[in-house]
Amino acid sequence: MVNNDKLIPAEFSRIDGGVTAPLGYSAGAVYVGVKSRKKHKPDLAVLYSERECACGALFTTNRFCAAPVLLGRELLKRGRTRAIVVNSGNANAGTGERGLRDARTVEAEAEHLLGLGEGEVFVCSTGVIGEYLPVDKILGGLKLIVPELSRDKGSDAAWAICTTDRTRKEAAYELRLSGGAVRIGVMAKGSGMIHPNMATMLLYITSDVEAESAVLQKMLADAADNSFHMLTVDGDTSTNDSAFLIANGASGVRLENEADRAAFYALIEYACIDMARRIASDGEGSTHLIEVRAEELPTLRDARLTARSIAGSTLFKAAVNGRDANWGRIMAAAGYSGADVDPAHADCVISSAAGEVQVMRDGFGTAFDETLATAILSEHDVTVTVRFHQGCAAATAWGCDLTREYVRLNGDYRT
Amino acid sequence: MVNNDKLIPAEFSRIDGGVTAPLGYSAGAVYVGVKSRKKHKPDLAVLYSERECACGALFTTNRFCAAPVLLGRELLKRGRTRAIVVNSGNANAGTGERGLRDARTVEAEAEHLLGLGEGEVFVCSTGVIGEYLPVDKILGGLKLIVPELSRDKGSDAAWAICTTDRTRKEAAYELRLSGGAVRIGVMAKGSGMIHPNMATMLLYITSDVEAESAVLQKMLADAADNSFHMLTVDGDTSTNDSAFLIANGASGVRLENEADRAAFYALIEYACIDMARRIASDGEGSTHLIEVRAEELPTLRDARLTARSIAGSTLFKAAVNGRDANWGRIMAAAGYSGADVDPAHADCVISSAAGEVQVMRDGFGTAFDETLATAILSEHDVTVTVRFHQGCAAATAWGCDLTREYVRLNGDYRT
Repeated sequence: MVNNDKLIPAEFSRIDGGVTAPLGYSAGAVYVGVKSRKKHKPDLAVLYSERECACGALFTTNRFCAAPVLLGRELLKRGRTRAIVVNSGNANAGTGERGLRDARTVEAEAEHLLGLGEGEVFVCSTGVIGEYLPVDKILGGLKLIVPELSRDKGSDAAWAICTTDRTRKEAAYELRLSGGAVRIGVMAKGSGMIHPNMATMLLYITSDVEAESAVLQKMLADAADNSFHMLTVDGDTSTNDSAFLIANGASGVRLENEADRAAFYALIEYACIDMARRIASDGEGSTHLIEVRAEELPTLRDARLTARSIAGSTLFKAAVNGRDANWGRIMAAAGYSGADVDPAHADCVISSAAGEVQVMRDGFGTAFDETLATAILSEHDVTVTVRFHQGCAAATAWGCDLTREYVRLNGDYRT
Repeated sequence: MVNNDKLIPAEFSRIDGGVTAPLGYSAGAVYVGVKSRKKHKPDLAVLYSERECACGALFTTNRFCAAPVLLGRELLKRGRTRAIVVNSGNANAGTGERGLRDARTVEAEAEHLLGLGEGEVFVCSTGVIGEYLPVDKILGGLKLIVPELSRDKGSDAAWAICTTDRTRKEAAYELRLSGGAVRIGVMAKGSGMIHPNMATMLLYITSDVEAESAVLQKMLADAADNSFHMLTVDGDTSTNDSAFLIANGASGVRLENEADRAAFYALIEYACIDMARRIASDGEGSTHLIEVRAEELPTLRDARLTARSIAGSTLFKAAVNGRDANWGRIMAAAGYSGADVDPAHADCVISSAAGEVQVMRDGFGTAFDETLATAILSEHDVTVTVRFHQGCAAATAWGCDLTREYVRLNGDYRT
């Protein structure tokens, strides 16, 4: 569906697998019936590292955040971790003190079963808000998973963390540094309630590089600014968004110099953008990935605001769903973005694998070929480029179309 | 559908008609085929005052604003007007210099036909963005309308300004001041691309009171803050939003003292809130009016941000469409609103004519009667009240549910 491979820089290559592709990681997943009705996939996952990991993490800015987010912020202060437990089907949000106790219970049992110390396991939840976590089911599931942890089960874990996602989202890469090869693995869960900041729902990046937590934290934050913070599915910022970048040093290779750090960062950013595109592509009910490029604006902030505003416009999303090259809505969204944009000389091009059509030139609508425009908008991946001729800053945002299926899905999500 | 009458303060009463109910106004409307396909309603309207009017006006904050908005801002500096011409079907936005020339041509021809001086006529447009105005059709229409202007045609004008609206929106009121009775008349066009600020699309309030333009300007701005700026249909701020409050003094009654000014303002605000509710109620494709009250917050800004965020949440709007009392989405939207909200002790009640159900108490979800909740959400008008116990400020916002019909409507609006 999304083919991003052509963009992979020469320094790194894609390898098989996901979060367990780097050395020293294993995973497991089972179905425990967190949200009882639907036994179509596993709903509890454990990701484990043989060695202690340095870690960086980002959590939702939503003030109504879930219990595991509160707990995670606390655990992050340690800067070290060994494992992460994730359940889907229940967000453990809006559950107050009991929710926090439940998250701690899951953490403690995982630490016990894995033979780890206090504070060495993160827990994450995603799913329905406002219901208590079925703790017994989860504890029972952990007992099944832990003895069977394996390097082969990264994909099972990637599927277990999903909710309404239509596909699992994982990838792995190898990168050559001055001291030798390192690997990173990624899994993410997306679909709905996706909006900056953060807008990943759940993201896990593992690596066997040796790095400090502060470095990982900075890299993750910078990469998120160019990826997940430029991603919108429905304008709703989740209560549970959490992203982790962990590194266990099992490769014995360190980030030795500036070139190593730049190469490693480039890979992290690449992997995050790839996941952002896949999440947009798999937006709830969506039939199109929409990539929006805002170019030639005075500042990066202006460019980001503009690109995000267009990608998030309900009316433009509905127009794409209807294969209507309604550029007026693109420009309207740019106009209310809050950015310093002057539409008077803007150019706008809509493109896809089927071709491209310029719909606006120097601030005016152009007479364009409607048949070609419809063909372009019939492709899954659609790109909108708006050039403002006001400066040198550019930014890209990702979103998806708004469909009747989105409305249907979200009309009866809870029940 | 929306019954707001119970809230009318004792000092004023509803009377028949709309913008031509106050003394000294007439109107007219015809079908000229601005957007050729659909001959189901008139699409060109003229509102005329026998006497010169003081006036206040608000225009969209969208930087990609329409030609008539640019022209209107210029004309507003005069502070006086005699007539307003409105066409639906074409927004005259994204049309550059030619669009501005077209708007001026319509203005000049209206002034000529009405025997008025330069700058005495406002023009407004609403409809598709990015196509040139069919000026000849509009000039031809003006020639038909002007000789037939009549006090009886206020409703025709109210219908002519509509696009995807399912119903015309008009009202008229009489108010007793110290010097005698005055009247105001209102018409509005709503439906889609509705979001602060402004969020009226088009609003016209006429009055036969005698008042200064500066007073009218201030009253309209304050009333809009409590009404149209608290209204969201789809999060998209229009390129054409314009609101006018004009007063011709034909009653011979002035705003003589503070009590008169307070009473007149109260009526203007009431009329604006009533229109905001009707516009939300008639939101594109909607089946529910959603009224959101955010109460007991530290500041008015916090309360407004919170109420608007909930009313605008795509996920909550989809849940209401599905009759799902998904309070988690209400609290999530409060949490990302940017307001100083602490959900830890919040209460949340969902109510309608069918009853009320408390879904959250002191920060926790409560076990509520799902059958009752579904019955409550089966009513057209639904109210959500969230109380935060953090202060004394309160605000109300209005929105509508998100439906498959919205997606369908906006997939092929342009073509």
